[in-house]
Amino acid sequence: MLQKTTRLSPLHPNRKAKILSSVGSGNDFETKYYEQTLDHFNYQPQSYATFTQKYVINSKYWGGANSSSPILAYLGAESSLGNDFSYIGSLSDNAPRFKALLVYIEHRFYGESIPFGLTEESMLKNESVRGYFNSDQALADYAEILRHIKESLCAPKSPIIVVGGSYGGMLAAWFRLKYPHIAMGALAISAPILYFEDLVPHDAYDSVVQKDFKKQSKSCFKTITKSWDTIYKLASQPNGLAILSQKFNSCSQLKSVDDLAEFIGDIYFSAAQYSFPPRYQVKIVCDAINGAPDGTDDLGRILAAIQSSYGGNGACHDISGFSDYVTYSWDWQTCSEMVIPMGGSKNITIAREKPFDMEERSKQCKKYYGVVPRPHWVTTYYGGQDIKTVLRKFGSNIIFSNGLRDPWSRAGILEDLSDSLLAVYTAKGSHCLDLYPASDVNTPWLSKQRKKEVQIMEKWFADYYAHLD
Amino acid sequence: MLQKTTRLSPLHPNRKAKILSSVGSGNDFETKYYEQTLDHFNYQPQSYATFTQKYVINSKYWGGANSSSPILAYLGAESSLGNDFSYIGSLSDNAPRFKALLVYIEHRFYGESIPFGLTEESMLKNESVRGYFNSDQALADYAEILRHIKESLCAPKSPIIVVGGSYGGMLAAWFRLKYPHIAMGALAISAPILYFEDLVPHDAYDSVVQKDFKKQSKSCFKTITKSWDTIYKLASQPNGLAILSQKFNSCSQLKSVDDLAEFIGDIYFSAAQYSFPPRYQVKIVCDAINGAPDGTDDLGRILAAIQSSYGGNGACHDISGFSDYVTYSWDWQTCSEMVIPMGGSKNITIAREKPFDMEERSKQCKKYYGVVPRPHWVTTYYGGQDIKTVLRKFGSNIIFSNGLRDPWSRAGILEDLSDSLLAVYTAKGSHCLDLYPASDVNTPWLSKQRKKEVQIMEKWFADYYAHLD
Repeated sequence: MLQKTTRLSPLHPNRKAKILSSVGSGNDFETKYYEQTLDHFNYQPQSYATFTQKYVINSKYWGGANSSSPILAYLGAESSLGNDFSYIGSLSDNAPRFKALLVYIEHRFYGESIPFGLTEESMLKNESVRGYFNSDQALADYAEILRHIKESLCAPKSPIIVVGGSYGGMLAAWFRLKYPHIAMGALAISAPILYFEDLVPHDAYDSVVQKDFKKQSKSCFKTITKSWDTIYKLASQPNGLAILSQKFNSCSQLKSVDDLAEFIGDIYFSAAQYSFPPRYQVKIVCDAINGAPDGTDDLGRILAAIQSSYGGNGACHDISGFSDYVTYSWDWQTCSEMVIPMGGSKNITIAREKPFDMEERSKQCKKYYGVVPRPHWVTTYYGGQDIKTVLRKFGSNIIFSNGLRDPWSRAGILEDLSDSLLAVYTAKGSHCLDLYPASDVNTPWLSKQRKKEVQIMEKWFADYYAHLD
Repeated sequence: MLQKTTRLSPLHPNRKAKILSSVGSGNDFETKYYEQTLDHFNYQPQSYATFTQKYVINSKYWGGANSSSPILAYLGAESSLGNDFSYIGSLSDNAPRFKALLVYIEHRFYGESIPFGLTEESMLKNESVRGYFNSDQALADYAEILRHIKESLCAPKSPIIVVGGSYGGMLAAWFRLKYPHIAMGALAISAPILYFEDLVPHDAYDSVVQKDFKKQSKSCFKTITKSWDTIYKLASQPNGLAILSQKFNSCSQLKSVDDLAEFIGDIYFSAAQYSFPPRYQVKIVCDAINGAPDGTDDLGRILAAIQSSYGGNGACHDISGFSDYVTYSWDWQTCSEMVIPMGGSKNITIAREKPFDMEERSKQCKKYYGVVPRPHWVTTYYGGQDIKTVLRKFGSNIIFSNGLRDPWSRAGILEDLSDSLLAVYTAKGSHCLDLYPASDVNTPWLSKQRKKEVQIMEKWFADYYAHLD
């Protein structure tokens, strides 16, 4: 079965809902649409087709073209940009200080930026249309739009820093490397740019999750590990799936223990990835496991963990199906270009995941989409091998920010590559924390990380203006 | 009428013939074919089609994988690679010193590397196939092949320097900027990377031609200037084209004076571009003009110039038509992606050329090929604007070599952009001189230029090996 969930999203759906409801939408944003080229790398007549790509602008804080004031551009990732941009809070936080224009651009094939008036669902069924749906084309979109914005504002000398989180963080780093003439710097937040081919172990993600739980509570980790044996043993018995279905309050009878394993595994993965201060989701999960009444068996404790994540209001759990189109769209990306080889290993006991199997994955992709992935392409086009040697004297002005508790951080850049390709990280941080508004997610160590990023960007701007013709 | 000739070729056809006949083909080269992806930037089923791309390898001088000895890779440009590689002589000259593997790769859609077994002619008539024919795809081809070669030789740490001349020189520079993880350096010979949009004046090329002739001989230049008035005046008279046809020994009667203007203009353009030592074509042309017997009129002197270039064996001149498919292929490139805005201006009197007219050009391209050019794309994808600011602290290890008498040099990089983005040029040089074997084209100043390039590359290699993991 294809992996339906996107662990790469900068925002946990629940988290996003919370933030969106707590902060106003802000009327300072003007929504615009750019007539975007469908295929930047081909000159067939159909490549010239266009689609409307959404972007929004906030010029409230902008110092203007006369002073060549800067532009902070958020590069949309694998979801709709939406109509409330408060989750991209760090940009708003920094705009007054930099007198920056804010630009947020939606990624092609998400939200309102799907060609030919298609829905995400119908687009994904169209083998010809979805072919144009990849990161290389998306970066070219961003290049065109940013160029267009500068031209239409008559601000040819306004420096641009691109910002993105997670997959969007990869896009930001790659954009600076591929289009240095358009972006003079990049803030790449929680960008696992090394999670391709064999650049990091395939169990890198899982191994950090495991470490996070072990560190939180040895007994919690032990209970989880043990529960897997119990679950799989039970599943192999006659009527076992029925018992498990009942035990875990599944909305419909389980068809496979693997569906349950994926559902429960996601509780731990999400907890680690989105373990936000001040409550820390890993702590919440482990508190639920450890804090169950004496005599609660392993499976009861795991149920408590599930309830701690899903609210525990007694509603049944939809264990075997997801229907969020956003995740399907990302699935297409992972089945074509973004081949991230994630999986379990014999060292992983926090979850039951099969090792990554490229052949099996190719077979599945072929079945679902009619084409096989190109696992070598990302490293061929963007690089990654010997990155320290390659970038030691090439490129400049990228901040790679990470939180070490984020399972993705293991595939991020965690040491400076040169004097302006910089690694900034926090020991306690998780996924994309520094993208959120400081008013919403904050702690002293996070403030420090944010401040450091601002100082680096200030230095870039100062250097830029000092050398302006 | 579309401009049929390619001024951008590193090799004048005559020149190439001369070199090829004077030097043996060399049996040290092994011809290979790579199964290349048709479309690197799309995931439609048809994008997965492949074609066989030709490349050749010479391992005679290679120090081998154990010592991670280097690779010099020639990036093919807008012509067939052919079967005699002696014209890429500077690479062979340098191979023993660097213990380098030589790799020469043919550009997609030229020579033997045309998809689906098509000829250049039939490919250009196929609007769907020719769409894949552009530089972005070509660079991706090179990336894949170079990666493949290193893998198949088990030489992951062998550093690659890419080399190219003219359009190929642009490809070399761009390749280093876009694929720094594959090429650790580039020698970009006579690469007019700034001849796009309004980065340089549209008459940049013509203005250097004019300067070259003026410097060679004021009276020669004066005669040429004057001759244009005579030609156009004559053409406007009844029977004028017939008289001109006879005067210039045209194989068929001229249909338009503009055809004649293009034919004669090309004499001067070619002379300036390929003014090779020790004879210098500009001198040959001016000697013919100045040295005609006393009493020869202007047109007679221009005829002498034509004869000095074409041999003067009495054969008629094919003034109104070219049939070389190579030039048609380049025409497609200039009608889609490589929109080089060249043309005359009121300051240009050495030739009669209309100013560049984007609208007119678009109309012609639409008529011939059904699509309009994308004049902004090269500067969007590869950059060019504010290049000094942009590359001051971005990128490294590119030599931009030029000869200042080469009309293309006006759109080349003629000053250092940083301490490893270096301009190397000669005052007397013309187009791509340092690509040829030293045994064939040489002078003390050219030797000096070659030596300087070698020293720079030696430094790059030394630095690379010193920092190898």
